[in-house]
Amino acid sequence: MSATVAPHSSDSVTLMGAGLVGSLLALYMARRGHSVDVFERRPDPRLAGPVEGRSINLALSDRGWRALEGVGIGDEIRRVAIPMYRRVMHDAKGQLTFQPYGQDNQAIYSVSRGGLNRTLLELAEAEPGVTLHFNQQCLHVGLKERELHLRDAATGQEQVRPFQRLFGTDGAFSAVRTAMQKTDRYNYSQSYLEYGYKELNIAPAADGTWQLEKNALHIWPRGQYMMIALPNLDGSFTCTLFFPYEGKHSFAALQTPAQVQEFFAEVFPDAAPLMPELIEDFFQNPTGSLVTVRCFPWAFDDDVLLLGDASHAIVPFYGQGMNAGFEDCTVLSQLMDEHGNDWHTIFQEFQRQRKPNADAMADLAIYNFEEMRDRVADPRFLLQKKIESKISAQYPDQWLPLYSQVTFSPDTPYAEALANGQRQERIMRKLMKHIEAEADFDKPEVQELVHHEMGRIAD
Amino acid sequence: MSATVAPHSSDSVTLMGAGLVGSLLALYMARRGHSVDVFERRPDPRLAGPVEGRSINLALSDRGWRALEGVGIGDEIRRVAIPMYRRVMHDAKGQLTFQPYGQDNQAIYSVSRGGLNRTLLELAEAEPGVTLHFNQQCLHVGLKERELHLRDAATGQEQVRPFQRLFGTDGAFSAVRTAMQKTDRYNYSQSYLEYGYKELNIAPAADGTWQLEKNALHIWPRGQYMMIALPNLDGSFTCTLFFPYEGKHSFAALQTPAQVQEFFAEVFPDAAPLMPELIEDFFQNPTGSLVTVRCFPWAFDDDVLLLGDASHAIVPFYGQGMNAGFEDCTVLSQLMDEHGNDWHTIFQEFQRQRKPNADAMADLAIYNFEEMRDRVADPRFLLQKKIESKISAQYPDQWLPLYSQVTFSPDTPYAEALANGQRQERIMRKLMKHIEAEADFDKPEVQELVHHEMGRIAD
Repeated sequence: MSATVAPHSSDSVTLMGAGLVGSLLALYMARRGHSVDVFERRPDPRLAGPVEGRSINLALSDRGWRALEGVGIGDEIRRVAIPMYRRVMHDAKGQLTFQPYGQDNQAIYSVSRGGLNRTLLELAEAEPGVTLHFNQQCLHVGLKERELHLRDAATGQEQVRPFQRLFGTDGAFSAVRTAMQKTDRYNYSQSYLEYGYKELNIAPAADGTWQLEKNALHIWPRGQYMMIALPNLDGSFTCTLFFPYEGKHSFAALQTPAQVQEFFAEVFPDAAPLMPELIEDFFQNPTGSLVTVRCFPWAFDDDVLLLGDASHAIVPFYGQGMNAGFEDCTVLSQLMDEHGNDWHTIFQEFQRQRKPNADAMADLAIYNFEEMRDRVADPRFLLQKKIESKISAQYPDQWLPLYSQVTFSPDTPYAEALANGQRQERIMRKLMKHIEAEADFDKPEVQELVHHEMGRIAD
Repeated sequence: MSATVAPHSSDSVTLMGAGLVGSLLALYMARRGHSVDVFERRPDPRLAGPVEGRSINLALSDRGWRALEGVGIGDEIRRVAIPMYRRVMHDAKGQLTFQPYGQDNQAIYSVSRGGLNRTLLELAEAEPGVTLHFNQQCLHVGLKERELHLRDAATGQEQVRPFQRLFGTDGAFSAVRTAMQKTDRYNYSQSYLEYGYKELNIAPAADGTWQLEKNALHIWPRGQYMMIALPNLDGSFTCTLFFPYEGKHSFAALQTPAQVQEFFAEVFPDAAPLMPELIEDFFQNPTGSLVTVRCFPWAFDDDVLLLGDASHAIVPFYGQGMNAGFEDCTVLSQLMDEHGNDWHTIFQEFQRQRKPNADAMADLAIYNFEEMRDRVADPRFLLQKKIESKISAQYPDQWLPLYSQVTFSPDTPYAEALANGQRQERIMRKLMKHIEAEADFDKPEVQELVHHEMGRIAD
């Protein structure tokens, strides 16, 4: 096959999907000198007005920043991102409690999915050799024939486009993956939570400022459901209600404007008055579903590779979906540095390295839903987090909290973070039996136990 | 909708798939007075000669017998079934060890898939109101329109058949399930082992008798792979080699007749001389793959229901795939007794009861592969089984070995069996630390430990 492959610097690559991962990957490929064709099912988002209403606000964290900086665009994105330094929990009486995300100036950053995507598309299109094709629905992928069958959604015209190397960056419902699913012995699963989500809005104050603490991620944890809010640049917050489809408190149970208004006034009493468009938003915005997709392999020969949600769609509760997809770009780029145009090795290594990390992240994301909707409302949980933070300060080389390993590490593999987190949780369970208040951390028996456990970790 | 439903006794039901579960379900439905149309993709197996070569021999056990007896055909099938009372393990030198399956006369029964299917079809077709349609490939299921789109494989003719109530008994690659997978928030997974299987043959002796112990299931456990053999009525044994696709010992590594012959002579020295057609079988029979399918829901409204492999295909290592599918028929029939023609309740209850049991059985089946290919060759494992059998004899009401709960119980839910088995395994691990030989069971400290653990179970 190598006889037909063009020299490294001029390999032609095809991307299906111009969302966040697709547009970033286009940039990476273009910077390496490849000519890049990107096909996208939807219209150019830069032409339409901002079409929000279906997207959870995104939280960029260190892995995402690293990938953006890999193509030199970190600063450009940072200008439109809002740092969030802590969780602010709102209880049913409107009382607040707080949980810092990390140390000092560590933050996750609220960005608009649409805004970020438009910026990445601008930057990609400015590169020589990148061509974006919008309104191109993928009807079929001929894996063996190396052909994309496309239909122009505007004109209805169909075309067959050959590809040399195809990257499937077309999201959780990937057409490229659908083709791979039909190959022999393909492992695949799609698993839905029994929760949907609804995007809502907290309006800016009359003077355009933020009606809640700006630099925070707000949570209204209510046990079996929750609402969150992330700040926007215009003074508003984008809220997302994560809510059961069925049951006593559920989408099925809220059918009329009066029911919605009454429910919000009762369970989110401090937020409801700040949501003048609650009823319109609730009934007009679609209810999104929450899917986890796992599959393997991610590569078909050395012709096709899946990245981002196409191979590992996860639920949004750890804020890592986009970050994990961006990290795919970082890892792929490293492998291209190491292995030149040996695409076989690049693709094999990519899926070998990334699959266990994607699986770990999928588990962590589901785990964090429970934490956010339920445990953050528990004083014992918050006390445990404070104690953990003390251990981390005392043994900085031996103890980095799980959240920090996932969020504030630019490259700790997710699988390693998960394993460390599980070991830490076992230790914390022993420790918390001796602790009633923050000051108990300094008790000799607690210090001895901590010291003992740190010794074991060092083994 | 109830206005359009015909009276209970004359409900018309449609089955897609006339395999083992489909043909048994047709019998159950006909006996209840329903008119039954059964569509099957393949030709009528009663017309073709026996087309084996792709099927592992089947082991009927108590759940299967119960389902057959539910329509009064147990005795008829028993006449062509061969009881297997124990496992016979063949080591690499041809030395034998033995492990009884249960007490006294407890056995699993070797039956031919093809023969059983043909018998069930005969019996179904003899019922008034049952119509079998062969060569009917399902192109599409209109779930909402309640339409089956079929193509006659012989004539190419397509037709649309309306259905009132559709049962998907069309196996691991079910077309009915494929339609359900496209509905909103459908949970689905297909997961393959990295092993394939190949059907082989041990010939009868010249006088038509069996060349190995007839009433046993033979295993050649070899750690990372194994061969098994089940007796047939004609004196032969059907062997199945479960073997990695890739690696040192694998299908990929055996490419020539000489390689196959040499490999078998070396690792299966007592079997190889009994396999005169080894080379033809090995290269002509297809390599089967081993898939586990899980999905949910199994019902679409009260119109469509999946049964058998269509909703819960499992790997064959516990001999429970057919038995679990047959048990679906038993449970469905019980629910029809309880709920008359309230199909909504019947379908909901069916999937609520059966889903956790199907999941447990899927886990058990994968677990048993390890046991069969590896642990049965370990003297410590066989000693543990003997000790367990002594506990069971001493405390018959409190301890039934896991294998017996799965195999020799007509109705212990699989999920309950799995939970019991896990508890027993924890106890055995404690106990075996004190045991070096069978006689150690009578040591006072061992007896005390057993007594103590039995007391805890009684709690």
